[in-house]
Order: sequence, then structure tokens, then C-alpha cells
Amino acid sequence: MRMRNKPWADDFMEENNHIVETSPFSHKGSWKNMFQNENPIHLEIGSGKGQFIANMAKQHLDINFIGMEKVKSVIVNAIEKVKETEVTNVRLVNENAEDLRELFTVNEIDKLYLNFSDPWPKARHEKRRLTYRTFLEQYQHILKPNGEIVLKTDNMQLFEYSVVSFSQYGMRLEEVTLDLNNIDDPLNVMTEYEEKFSSLGQPIYRCRVRFP
Amino acid sequence: MRMRNKPWADDFMEENNHIVETSPFSHKGSWKNMFQNENPIHLEIGSGKGQFIANMAKQHLDINFIGMEKVKSVIVNAIEKVKETEVTNVRLVNENAEDLRELFTVNEIDKLYLNFSDPWPKARHEKRRLTYRTFLEQYQHILKPNGEIVLKTDNMQLFEYSVVSFSQYGMRLEEVTLDLNNIDDPLNVMTEYEEKFSSLGQPIYRCRVRFP
Repeated sequence: MRMRNKPWADDFMEENNHIVETSPFSHKGSWKNMFQNENPIHLEIGSGKGQFIANMAKQHLDINFIGMEKVKSVIVNAIEKVKETEVTNVRLVNENAEDLRELFTVNEIDKLYLNFSDPWPKARHEKRRLTYRTFLEQYQHILKPNGEIVLKTDNMQLFEYSVVSFSQYGMRLEEVTLDLNNIDDPLNVMTEYEEKFSSLGQPIYRCRVRFP
Repeated sequence: MRMRNKPWADDFMEENNHIVETSPFSHKGSWKNMFQNENPIHLEIGSGKGQFIANMAKQHLDINFIGMEKVKSVIVNAIEKVKETEVTNVRLVNENAEDLRELFTVNEIDKLYLNFSDPWPKARHEKRRLTYRTFLEQYQHILKPNGEIVLKTDNMQLFEYSVVSFSQYGMRLEEVTLDLNNIDDPLNVMTEYEEKFSSLGQPIYRCRVRFP
């Protein structure tokens, strides 16, 4: 879902520069200094309206969360959501994830979340899927050794593709769940999409994988 | 499904000892001699009533197929099915797959099929699942390097478990299909269970994995 362009978005982001990072590239290699603590850093690619990252941050106050969302008119909702929670362990970044190595240095990230990423179903768009191997190379670079990726999606084809792509890259599956709503996971935090698709009875797929 | 005990089964197996191997352990290391050709050997664990192996053999006359089925009252149906097809590239084995290394030597098998195996859903029965790591050790021993396993099941939990178990063992996923009936695979040969569950609209899961 894309929201209408919000002309006041730039002003709103500037007002909330304690939540959204206006010069994120300058923090490469020093995100811990920015958070002013030594806690692990978890990164979400595609935070959308921010429900997941805001609630995760509330649930895990001893973890720092960075949420990337390229769409300006969407990230403003995420800013609102984070403001409401009143937590200080979240920063949002309004950038495209074209090369994460420009934002983060080697081993800087402890865990990565890919939530309901664009499935790019056409074969000729395979390289745009966030689980294509060139993206895995980036993730491996910025993640700690044995770093974990958690992927959730309602798209069966993206899930099938991603599990195989992870495995072909040499990653190990820690968990595969083909119907997340049918298992009891009290720690699962739902995204907006997840709530919507779950309420429609559609299965939500999840996997956790680790780099070697 | 278990069929009633058939007291005539022993006689029937003896009559058809060109299809069912009465002394399979004696062929360890020399199954190719038994088939009297150099064709690759594919092994199915749990052949049931034999629809899959009989039709696979008809479809691939240049491959030798060995089908294992421990239940005597079921394997007689498989014998019938193989007789009907009139192929000579199938042998059936009425043994439990407790240790395949007693039946096959290193690298003797080219490909392995696990079709609709018993899911053993209780956690305390994990070791009985045919994708538990002690079974993977056996498969790796008897399969050629880079040997492939193809697993099909209608059981979601067994599929989730198996994909993770394969990956944890160091195997690579070549393919994951979460709804086999919705993809166009003209070479797919259905088992009896698969026909039944597919006609009920239940998804059939399939994966192909390789040892490193």
C-alpha cells in the first residue's frame, strides 16, 4: 500500500530528527555511539508504517533497532508510531537499501528482519528480490559472524525462492514455519500486513537462517 | 492405511521373486550386477502400494528402481502394480529401513525418494522420522557424492522439520514447492496418497536437496 505524497513530510522528519536519522551515512561504523550504549543492533529492511519495529523496541528495551523505509510518505507513519511508544532505542532511516555497506560497517549488525518484502514475481526481476544473492552478500558483510536473518511473508513464491536462495548461499535454516498463526509464539510481533493477511485466514510463512 | 494380513503373501512373494528380492542383503555392493546393466539406481523408502515406483520405472526405462516397503500385506499390491507395467527395471525389497548400510554399499545409489513418510508427530518420536540426522547419515553413506533426495509429503510439520534437518546437516536445497498441484510439472509421478490428498485440495509439499 502506498500513501499519497505528503508535502509536509520533510518538515515532519526534520522536527523528529531524534527518531529519523537525517544523515545516516555519517554513522557508518559508529551506530553504537549514536545509541550511546553497547546493546546489539537489529535492522529491519522495509519498516512500512512501523508497527513491527515500534512494538519490537518496546518488547526489547536492551536492543537497538534501526528501521529502513524508502517511501517518505510511509515512514512518517512509522515516526508517529515510534513517538507514541516513547522508546529511545529506535532510529528510522529514509533510504533505499541499495547498498547497505554504505550505511553499516563489517559486523555492525546483530540481526536482520525482512518483513513482507516486495515479491517481484517476474523471473526477470529476480535480482530485485531482497533475498537474491547480491543482497545476501551485503547482509553477510554487515552482520556479525553467525548473524541471523528472520524473514516473514505471506507470499508463497517469495518464501520458496528465499529458502532455496539462503541454502544455495550456504546459510543454515534454524526454523521454517508454514503457518505462523497456527503455532503458539508469544514473542511474535505482527506487522500491519501480517495482521491484515492473518485476519483473512491466509498463511504467514516465517524462516530463521544463519550465515555460517 | 494398513491392509489386513494376507496369509498367502509369502507364497505370492516367492512366486514373484523376479520382482521382489528374497535375499536383498546378498546384493549389497552388486545391485548393478543384479540388474545386469550400468544404469543409475534410484531408491524409494516406503513404496506402499507401488504406484509411484511402477510409473517412475515406466517413465524412466534407463534407470533402475529399488522400492523398499516393510509391510508385507502392502508390498503385495506393489508387486501386482509392477507386474502390470511389465517393466524389468524395478526390484522391491520387503525390509525395514533400519540400517540401509546393510543393504547398500558406499556410493551405490544415485537418488533417493521419501514419499509421504510417517510424520511421527510427537517430539519424543523425532528419532524415528526418516529425515532425522541418523537417517541422513545412512543416506549420505549409500548415495553418490552430490546425491539428491526428493521428499514429498502432505504433512506440514514433517515438511518444516525435514527442511530444517536437511539444512542443519549441511545439505543444500535445490527446490522447495509448497503447493505441488499448483505448479506445472509434467514429470511429477503421483503416489496413491498424493492422488487422494490432492483430490481433497490439500497442498502437497516437495523439496529436492543435495549432500555437499
